[in-house]
Amino acid sequence: MNPTSIYLPDWLTHSAQNHPDQLALKDQHTSWSFAELDRQATRMARQLASVGIQAEERIALLAANGLSYVTCVHALTRLGAILVPLNTRLTRDELCWQLRDVRATLLLHDDTWAAQAHEIQQALPEIICATLEEQAYEDELIIAQQVEAAVTLRTLIDLDATQAIMYTSGTTGHPKGAIITYGMQWWNAIGSALNLGHRGDDCWLACMPFFHIGGLSILMRSVIYGISVIIHQKFDALAVNRAIREERVTIISVVAIMLQRMLNALDAETGNAHGTQYPATLRCVLLGGGPAPQPLLEDCASRAIPVVQTYGLTEACSQAVTLAPEDALRKLGSAGRPLAPVQLRILHDGQEVLAGASGEIFLKGPTITPGYAGQPEATAQALRDGWLATGDLGYLDSEGYLYVLDRRSDLIISGGENVYPAEIEAMLLSHPAVAEAGVCGQGDTQWGQVPIAFVCLHTQHTVTSTALMEYATQRLARYKQPRSIHIVAQLPRNSSGKLLRRELPKLLLEAQY
Amino acid sequence: MNPTSIYLPDWLTHSAQNHPDQLALKDQHTSWSFAELDRQATRMARQLASVGIQAEERIALLAANGLSYVTCVHALTRLGAILVPLNTRLTRDELCWQLRDVRATLLLHDDTWAAQAHEIQQALPEIICATLEEQAYEDELIIAQQVEAAVTLRTLIDLDATQAIMYTSGTTGHPKGAIITYGMQWWNAIGSALNLGHRGDDCWLACMPFFHIGGLSILMRSVIYGISVIIHQKFDALAVNRAIREERVTIISVVAIMLQRMLNALDAETGNAHGTQYPATLRCVLLGGGPAPQPLLEDCASRAIPVVQTYGLTEACSQAVTLAPEDALRKLGSAGRPLAPVQLRILHDGQEVLAGASGEIFLKGPTITPGYAGQPEATAQALRDGWLATGDLGYLDSEGYLYVLDRRSDLIISGGENVYPAEIEAMLLSHPAVAEAGVCGQGDTQWGQVPIAFVCLHTQHTVTSTALMEYATQRLARYKQPRSIHIVAQLPRNSSGKLLRRELPKLLLEAQY
Repeated sequence: MNPTSIYLPDWLTHSAQNHPDQLALKDQHTSWSFAELDRQATRMARQLASVGIQAEERIALLAANGLSYVTCVHALTRLGAILVPLNTRLTRDELCWQLRDVRATLLLHDDTWAAQAHEIQQALPEIICATLEEQAYEDELIIAQQVEAAVTLRTLIDLDATQAIMYTSGTTGHPKGAIITYGMQWWNAIGSALNLGHRGDDCWLACMPFFHIGGLSILMRSVIYGISVIIHQKFDALAVNRAIREERVTIISVVAIMLQRMLNALDAETGNAHGTQYPATLRCVLLGGGPAPQPLLEDCASRAIPVVQTYGLTEACSQAVTLAPEDALRKLGSAGRPLAPVQLRILHDGQEVLAGASGEIFLKGPTITPGYAGQPEATAQALRDGWLATGDLGYLDSEGYLYVLDRRSDLIISGGENVYPAEIEAMLLSHPAVAEAGVCGQGDTQWGQVPIAFVCLHTQHTVTSTALMEYATQRLARYKQPRSIHIVAQLPRNSSGKLLRRELPKLLLEAQY
Repeated sequence: MNPTSIYLPDWLTHSAQNHPDQLALKDQHTSWSFAELDRQATRMARQLASVGIQAEERIALLAANGLSYVTCVHALTRLGAILVPLNTRLTRDELCWQLRDVRATLLLHDDTWAAQAHEIQQALPEIICATLEEQAYEDELIIAQQVEAAVTLRTLIDLDATQAIMYTSGTTGHPKGAIITYGMQWWNAIGSALNLGHRGDDCWLACMPFFHIGGLSILMRSVIYGISVIIHQKFDALAVNRAIREERVTIISVVAIMLQRMLNALDAETGNAHGTQYPATLRCVLLGGGPAPQPLLEDCASRAIPVVQTYGLTEACSQAVTLAPEDALRKLGSAGRPLAPVQLRILHDGQEVLAGASGEIFLKGPTITPGYAGQPEATAQALRDGWLATGDLGYLDSEGYLYVLDRRSDLIISGGENVYPAEIEAMLLSHPAVAEAGVCGQGDTQWGQVPIAFVCLHTQHTVTSTALMEYATQRLARYKQPRSIHIVAQLPRNSSGKLLRRELPKLLLEAQY
């Protein structure tokens, strides 16, 4: 036991004892009460223990949103093992890189991702690969059929312990594994409840992937609050609208493009009667993933949809700053005010600036990551005296409302996914013909932004942009692939040679196809 | 800054910034928004700083429930000074004892308690005495008229810091000052919100004295949640019923005798139409202060009054275990299940016992006191490895519901106030004629219980019970005064000479008047 840490009774156990029969989870096929989820988590924990999984081990999970994903999350808590949620959109090479970097010992997968997991195991024979399902490949370790081991499972949660390591890219080429502690999850859940209110009969719709912090944190809130979660494997606007109407969903987490599609589908369903409303049971639409377009906010206001905009990041365990629905139009463009446990500062040249002046956004508090796994230098760079340098630019108005001017000067947000230019540039530079590469975002009506790339070639090398596009397709997750790659004579740089990504769009005028 | 502690942005400041115009407090005469309460607390903090009050100083407060009480509580937070709330029902001697024991430097009082404070100052000239009001005695330090000092007020709350020292009697003769940290208040507020739900438009009626933990914790919840508090200076069933109807009160904290009077008044108002209901806005009646009589619970059930029974104590920062309304009759006599942050164990002879077996109730978690101020021995006796020995007996049923069999074997609960026999016995023993004294509770239809006393006299001394009653009247708060004092030949003791308080009632048969 860590004498300075706080230990809480296991969250799922507490909910299962307080409300055994209450709905905990529901997916397309199955509903589980808290008592059933508790039983399943204990069963899986014992199965994992029986194959030797121990505390502190890093267990990667490659699976679609579903009941077995949630079971696995809670089972690992009872073992003190660390969850590494894998982004299913990544390529095999990207996944192998993360698995090696995090030193994962076990890769768990569901049926949907069995083939992908199989390929990874070929490349990384040191990692054990196992399915979460009953129907398993013969030559794999079959979790669901193991005899349950008689191990002592943890009944207390140490708030200082690591729950998950979640990869997030930065301004450097490779993603870094942000440490997510149980305390971050707890304090974020409490900050959110104090802000949004907490009702025992709440029902949260999760249609964001669980491998992102916005999805994973819903699972934690479910057991901390003792509330129901409806799980959608993929976002489908029609299915979401149906769930809001028929399942009495009270809260939903979305990004702008999803909300726009929901409204379009809503109007289409009702014969294009623009302005159709949701039932009053929907009390909060938590809108993350970058600034929301004004027409969308105005549309929501006219339909009395309670949109709570939020500025969050993996390192802050999702939401850090939110804007109340009543302020949505009064404070247009603002991300709102910090959650109760969060301190916020704007610094310019290391000095805190006054209201109205812009600078880099810094965050501090118990919802903020203690650092990146195995990356002391990157940790020291991002965190000084507990203050997280977000890399994002913004300012506070006189009432303390945050306006985010720019997500990390170069961050591209495409359909709610963060796309980091440096990662795409590093990939392009690995091609023998490419001497320099620069990536920036281009406005897109469907995705908000898409990445586009500019490259200079080595003298005496030639390659077509089509060949480079193919090269990228093999190496990058689809959402990171440049919409176009332009071969140019020179990239814009400042006097010290630093790439000026903001100047890249001008090159479109001189691009050589 | 303490590196292992958690710091949160000042709770009142956060609420004032998020909801400046929302109602924070309302008493008989005045309503304050959060912005106004924030302004008043800052003003009083600066005034106190201007007369030299510093961090860590113990500031005693002798005042009735009211706006200035609340202002003072939050002002002390901004100075890092420690609140010592005084029970206004105590005698001057009892108050002087506590002020000396806690080493208070300043005694703040309101108009109502000015005369009492004046007398105390005569007895304790080393303590500065000051009024919270504008209309003050000339020879006193007048807080409200001081120039505000330009000091730096605290903007962060250290959860490990002491907020208050609250006196509570134990099995020993003298009360002990239980340390109440900010963390205890925070975690208790969060545990309560997770249990009862949290709504931004909640309104809590406070008609319990703020010098008890049940009252003080409402003030903390108000600023942590950002919700309104209606303050009643004294409990008045008619006024409470009016507030529930007219002020849209959603939560009220009461003890059984108060609730019974509220129902009686409710029926009387409506022409004795037994079974009159409260409006549905009243969503929680938090019922503390000992077990509730079954007829009262059945009456509440028939009126659909959502009664949440609770087992709490000062050392646990009020509620520790609560029973949901839906379980009130199914689990009759139970105190319910622990709040989310609370661990509970039943020990017998140092061993944890199984469901159904009784023993002493132990509690652990971030809502539990770290100890008694200046009392390392009492602290070591009460707390082992963070587990608080409550002194109360109980058992858990197979579903983990707590049944409290006996509040500390000898505790008397009279009208919601804890009365400790040892304290009354010590007072009686201070009389020259009294050789032995024993005190126990006697059932009382109005107060639940009242104390009665038995004494043996020194040979060659005589005194009448009337004279002893007078002696007690001068030395004990009214609620602690024995209803009757019986002079007997011998007190029941076990073989090792320990007083058997449970056997005392039998002496009524042989009492000599």
